[in-house]
Amino acid sequence: MTTRRLHLNAFLMGVGHHEAAWRHPRTEPARLTDVRHYQELARIAERGLLDSVFLADGLALQGDVRHNALGGLEPLTLLSALAAVTDHIGLIATVSTTYNEPFHVARKFASLDHISGGRAGWNIVTSASEAEARNFGIERPAHAERYARATEFLDVVTKLWDSWEDDAIVADRSGGHYADTRRIHALDHEGVHFRVRGPLNTSRPPQGHPLLVQAGSSEDGKEFAARFAEAVFTAQQTLDDGREFYTDLKSRLAKYGRRPEDVLILPGISPIIGSTEHEARRLEKELEELIIPAYGLAQLSHLVGIDLAEDALDRPLPDIPVETEGAQSRRKLVIELARRENLTVRRLLGRLAGGRGHRVVTGTPEQIADQIQTWFENGAADGFNIMPPVLPGGLEHFVDHVVPELQFRGLFRTAYDSRTLRGNYGLERPASRHAAREAAETATAAGEAGGRLDVAVAS
Amino acid sequence: MTTRRLHLNAFLMGVGHHEAAWRHPRTEPARLTDVRHYQELARIAERGLLDSVFLADGLALQGDVRHNALGGLEPLTLLSALAAVTDHIGLIATVSTTYNEPFHVARKFASLDHISGGRAGWNIVTSASEAEARNFGIERPAHAERYARATEFLDVVTKLWDSWEDDAIVADRSGGHYADTRRIHALDHEGVHFRVRGPLNTSRPPQGHPLLVQAGSSEDGKEFAARFAEAVFTAQQTLDDGREFYTDLKSRLAKYGRRPEDVLILPGISPIIGSTEHEARRLEKELEELIIPAYGLAQLSHLVGIDLAEDALDRPLPDIPVETEGAQSRRKLVIELARRENLTVRRLLGRLAGGRGHRVVTGTPEQIADQIQTWFENGAADGFNIMPPVLPGGLEHFVDHVVPELQFRGLFRTAYDSRTLRGNYGLERPASRHAAREAAETATAAGEAGGRLDVAVAS
Repeated sequence: MTTRRLHLNAFLMGVGHHEAAWRHPRTEPARLTDVRHYQELARIAERGLLDSVFLADGLALQGDVRHNALGGLEPLTLLSALAAVTDHIGLIATVSTTYNEPFHVARKFASLDHISGGRAGWNIVTSASEAEARNFGIERPAHAERYARATEFLDVVTKLWDSWEDDAIVADRSGGHYADTRRIHALDHEGVHFRVRGPLNTSRPPQGHPLLVQAGSSEDGKEFAARFAEAVFTAQQTLDDGREFYTDLKSRLAKYGRRPEDVLILPGISPIIGSTEHEARRLEKELEELIIPAYGLAQLSHLVGIDLAEDALDRPLPDIPVETEGAQSRRKLVIELARRENLTVRRLLGRLAGGRGHRVVTGTPEQIADQIQTWFENGAADGFNIMPPVLPGGLEHFVDHVVPELQFRGLFRTAYDSRTLRGNYGLERPASRHAAREAAETATAAGEAGGRLDVAVAS
Repeated sequence: MTTRRLHLNAFLMGVGHHEAAWRHPRTEPARLTDVRHYQELARIAERGLLDSVFLADGLALQGDVRHNALGGLEPLTLLSALAAVTDHIGLIATVSTTYNEPFHVARKFASLDHISGGRAGWNIVTSASEAEARNFGIERPAHAERYARATEFLDVVTKLWDSWEDDAIVADRSGGHYADTRRIHALDHEGVHFRVRGPLNTSRPPQGHPLLVQAGSSEDGKEFAARFAEAVFTAQQTLDDGREFYTDLKSRLAKYGRRPEDVLILPGISPIIGSTEHEARRLEKELEELIIPAYGLAQLSHLVGIDLAEDALDRPLPDIPVETEGAQSRRKLVIELARRENLTVRRLLGRLAGGRGHRVVTGTPEQIADQIQTWFENGAADGFNIMPPVLPGGLEHFVDHVVPELQFRGLFRTAYDSRTLRGNYGLERPASRHAAREAAETATAAGEAGGRLDVAVAS
């Protein structure tokens, strides 16, 4: 029997996940656009043998930049620079399906996968905000419409990744044959949202398909994850909620012909670590005192859909319905949190400042490890999305103090045994759909399997 | 008086610019998707103190992959990985304005500029081929329409780069003020092709604007270059043609309020270098013998617009009109080359194999340097776009043997005196349009200069 092992992702965000991180003496806000900062974070995460690093993204300036360090780097561009200074760790970037074209996205992730030697992952988002739509000159598509587009988008992107079979490149120099065009396939995709001829002009990625990651927890989001995702990031406040989400998502897999182990579920956790419990509480308190209520109020107002002013701070959250069109899971989580713990708006803001709705756990390395172990062993997690409150310090503390404890308990690897993201996550490399089809058929004389390829002058 | 200095760009293309490079024993075709190959090339170019490296691009598999090493990496993704291993050299990537959105392009180049510390450049193309249009589900827009879109695209992208003023970030930690939103501006751009609200969600690039490069030599292309470009790559076969192009383009600048020195003109040159003339000729001959006529025939047929079969090889190029709608400058160049030198199709293919219409110069380092000096001193070039026939060897030879000769003649730098691409090219850093406007006005009480910024929950 093989021991079930934890998977850990480092969620990198500017100088920390706490909204006041940039004000804390342990950070340097000028690092927000400094590649060396992110390279240092990736190296720390790799020193800790973590599975992957992950960068979130949005396509508009969101959040009030008067009071938070915003305006950083585009993730895919950044990840290549991280690939250059690491060897094992996976590199996951967020890219939207609503404001992109499948050809570009397939090509960029294929390129990152080649550049990193098989360490690329794509966190697929559908971009919920109106601010993003206004940067692309369109009305924000409705929730269901965004997911319909995303579904077709994934179909096209995976076809493009498969358009070159693994053995398409012959490289017969003396014979003058570079590629076997019977193993390079046009798509001739004609769908509702996209018409894409293909093939891709980048050969098949080392991982076959870069890893597919998803983070939406709405009904459509969970169904999309069940169909496509191989890792799921999720915000869950309580063990019960975590278990319910875990069981729900895993139960949806069978109808897509997938097994429970084909998807890893990684809840977010923001660990505020001290060498004593007191020290951890002190850091938590320091950060809390740096919170600017106007910032959190604006964020919360936007999320719940009502205007909250300063005079609302010391009253409970007003009575607002949980469900809306589009079923924003984060909104539901926040309203339920306020109700469950009977929080004033000010106390709610304090609870959200650390992880925007993700769980904040404050304590010693052993206490953090206890929480991780409990969720992992009680059907709520296959691993965790680690969201340090301050960076790089919070990640260093996790790697230097929590990881060794998890290793001591036999929960986490003590050496990398792979150089790919799929390898780290224990997931299979998908075969090309063409290779699979060919394997299923009896071997017959090789025919013109692909569409005619275009011949044109390269510039 | 300052000495006028040459500018040199290394045009990196797979394992070499010669179409048969992948078959030559000095190359390794498996390097086509190996990041270490490109990192080695960038380091060699930086060792030679070159101004920049450049990657071409297209959005379809073009050229017959049966007979050439195609299917490489997406340039922008690759350049970040090159930024990580270099310190001085400029990094120029090709990105199309026809199949992209300005918000994405502005953001990615701003990010690359931050990542590289001010070394990013954008080679702006409008994507002429039908094969590219078919990967994006649209009819190929007409030539004039593509340039109209490109013009508005540039307007939006430069507005986005200017949307954060240089001093927008205050980072006042104790006061809790990160940015001065009076210095971050919405665009509210409403044009024919784009509606973009802005601002960008990446702060102003270190260079203000990443360098703008252009390579189309059609009438529309030259006008576009005169308006926007700061460096122009061009294919010119003879000194007379080179001088005519140079004079023509520089004369177009005044009407856009620009000076001749605001644009560098860099003709392409593929140097086939030997330590003796005989050795150079031998390499040229080796490469020529590896040419696969079917490959060149297909490329040439596509370019000139008639089907040329194997039986056409030993006859002159058929009589075809030079001018077409869209005025493809490369087509004109090729037809005129065949006529001027009375070439058979086979000999024409030989002449095109080295540089796809760019000038091939074969000889000793001194003979190559002579050619460079003649064009530079006779009004045909501000520098050159170096296109080595085989890579990395051809670039090494250029750097180790031609560069020292150019330095000896006082034509080329002997040390970098800048860490930015603009600095290498001797070009100014553009001020933000907002800062410029503000400077022009009398200083008055600070008002709400920008549009209202959106406040929303970051995911």
